[in-house]
Amino acid sequence: MSFAPLQNDTFLRACRRLATPYTPTWLMRQAGRYLPEYRETRARAGSFMGLAMNKDFATEVTLQPLDRYALDAAILFSDILTVPDAMGLGLSFALGEGPRFAQPVRDEAAVRALAVPDMEKLRYVFDAVTSIRNALNGRVPLIGFSGSPWTLACYMVEGAGSDDYRLVKTMLYSRPDLMHRVLEINADAVSAYLNAQIEAGAQAVMIFDSWGGVLADGAFQQFSLAYTERVLRQLKREHEGVTIPRIVFTKGGGPWLEEMGALDCDVLGLDWTTNLARARALVGGSKALQGNLDPNVLFAPPASIAAETIKVLESFGAPHSGAGTGPSHIFNLGHGISQHTPPEHVQALVDTVRSHSRRMRGQPSA
Amino acid sequence: MSFAPLQNDTFLRACRRLATPYTPTWLMRQAGRYLPEYRETRARAGSFMGLAMNKDFATEVTLQPLDRYALDAAILFSDILTVPDAMGLGLSFALGEGPRFAQPVRDEAAVRALAVPDMEKLRYVFDAVTSIRNALNGRVPLIGFSGSPWTLACYMVEGAGSDDYRLVKTMLYSRPDLMHRVLEINADAVSAYLNAQIEAGAQAVMIFDSWGGVLADGAFQQFSLAYTERVLRQLKREHEGVTIPRIVFTKGGGPWLEEMGALDCDVLGLDWTTNLARARALVGGSKALQGNLDPNVLFAPPASIAAETIKVLESFGAPHSGAGTGPSHIFNLGHGISQHTPPEHVQALVDTVRSHSRRMRGQPSA
Repeated sequence: MSFAPLQNDTFLRACRRLATPYTPTWLMRQAGRYLPEYRETRARAGSFMGLAMNKDFATEVTLQPLDRYALDAAILFSDILTVPDAMGLGLSFALGEGPRFAQPVRDEAAVRALAVPDMEKLRYVFDAVTSIRNALNGRVPLIGFSGSPWTLACYMVEGAGSDDYRLVKTMLYSRPDLMHRVLEINADAVSAYLNAQIEAGAQAVMIFDSWGGVLADGAFQQFSLAYTERVLRQLKREHEGVTIPRIVFTKGGGPWLEEMGALDCDVLGLDWTTNLARARALVGGSKALQGNLDPNVLFAPPASIAAETIKVLESFGAPHSGAGTGPSHIFNLGHGISQHTPPEHVQALVDTVRSHSRRMRGQPSA
Repeated sequence: MSFAPLQNDTFLRACRRLATPYTPTWLMRQAGRYLPEYRETRARAGSFMGLAMNKDFATEVTLQPLDRYALDAAILFSDILTVPDAMGLGLSFALGEGPRFAQPVRDEAAVRALAVPDMEKLRYVFDAVTSIRNALNGRVPLIGFSGSPWTLACYMVEGAGSDDYRLVKTMLYSRPDLMHRVLEINADAVSAYLNAQIEAGAQAVMIFDSWGGVLADGAFQQFSLAYTERVLRQLKREHEGVTIPRIVFTKGGGPWLEEMGALDCDVLGLDWTTNLARARALVGGSKALQGNLDPNVLFAPPASIAAETIKVLESFGAPHSGAGTGPSHIFNLGHGISQHTPPEHVQALVDTVRSHSRRMRGQPSA
């Protein structure tokens, strides 16, 4: 496939730990319910999956935040649970509730029946990637993504969100053999899924280990990190001669930062509990760091948002600015943006990152 | 007041980092819904607060787990929200839901109206402490407790449990002056509350910072840790010539372990995400460590529970066993026991801690 040349490579350079004139910014869940234009498209689509499964709608909402804010990357609009849905678990979204699987994976028979799905069933995602990449027309790079094997397993076993992860952890501690089997299949499915996104036009890929942080020390390494590694081992490193950066984000992964520093990826995403100076000292020599403003800061007035944004930038400190590679920061939230966020507050964040990060590099702020 | 002499001082010795013949054990929420005898008493009491506010019922349920298991401490049966209730916020428990305050603290007027409550309003708690201490008759020591200033503030501002802490964090980032005012009042109230528990017979006290881990790095130090320190500064160090150990437990507090190592307390409680060997290396030179089995392990069969329990013990390693003070471990869960736990599974945990921790000290296991 041939796409328009990239006009803003700040994000991709930062992923590769190369110097950038300012700190690139994007926001997890930047296309979402906090934007009135998203809600309008969502209403036309009729349902969340109607939106996610239609490439025109998915393209429309992916680009919406870029029209409002000077963001440095787009991220595929999709759901984290497309892969288990393609496995036949029957994903649905009840109104006002979260996702739910009609056939959760809770016993040996259900585990034995699992398999890596035919990627054709996920064609709608790859079509959306290509459509978005075309619509971006080189403005900023497009990030593809998937849930991590462990995070997908949480939903597959629980059948829905959970506040204690009792069912999945019961399987983990009672039948580790079954748990490993689910995770192997998930890892192979996620690898195939991300590789197909890369082939369809994704210029970077991100693995969301949203629930890695609920695991005990020891179990995290065995049941989450090991399968993230298995995904990374199988990912394409480049496509049509261009390197594809890989980002791993483990919410609540702070305790295992050193171990994550050994992952074969380019960027580590961090939540707001992690001190960026400490993270930089531990892993900044080999990984770019992405994060980590608390999304709740966006409920404060713009002056407070600016102050907290500057704290995050200063906590990382001045990035590498010379030739070659060095410590590098990508600004983001520490988790997805809340649906209750006033859109004008996001402007304060984006403006502050741009101007303050230029100042930190000794450049004029505008 | 005069109470029967203590027959089992293993827990108190471990708090003071003195050698013990085995690793003492107790379990957060050890008196609770997983026990059929608790559910029976709860039914007689008519309601949760009817149970917590009646010293005879509170005494009965506090002692129930001790009759089943060889636990080394009792903990006051009470609710974490008694203090804000005494402030007049109107605590209630709707059936099947969590706690709720009729008058949440969300604006300047509500903050201005807050004050340290008259401790007479909490007399029912102190009466329960004395009643329990008498009923224990020296079997094991009694732990008193309170929520931390920050954790109480979360409930007071949110008015109920929350999954994003949006309201309390909005106050924190928008009106830090109001947030600090709430926390000052909470800290002074918690100090008075714990001191009154000590006077009534509590032999150790624990501060539950259940929601400290939701704060961003920087905010945690300013809005949680600083007020835990304010409580600790005001606590009685001893009562009737006996030292009262202080335990601080921050769920999700792993990222700030080194800073918590500087707290003026005896024991740090840890959740299951923290590696005990690392924690011991960081803070074991000045603090006993309490924790940290994932409560979900208790859903696995007894053999798996024993294996995971041994992993926790071995992760801490052999405690100090000579004269004087040294690294010391108190076995516990990393969070409260689940209501769905099969009671016979707890037996496997308690038996394993006792036998394996004796072996680790080179003693016969029974």
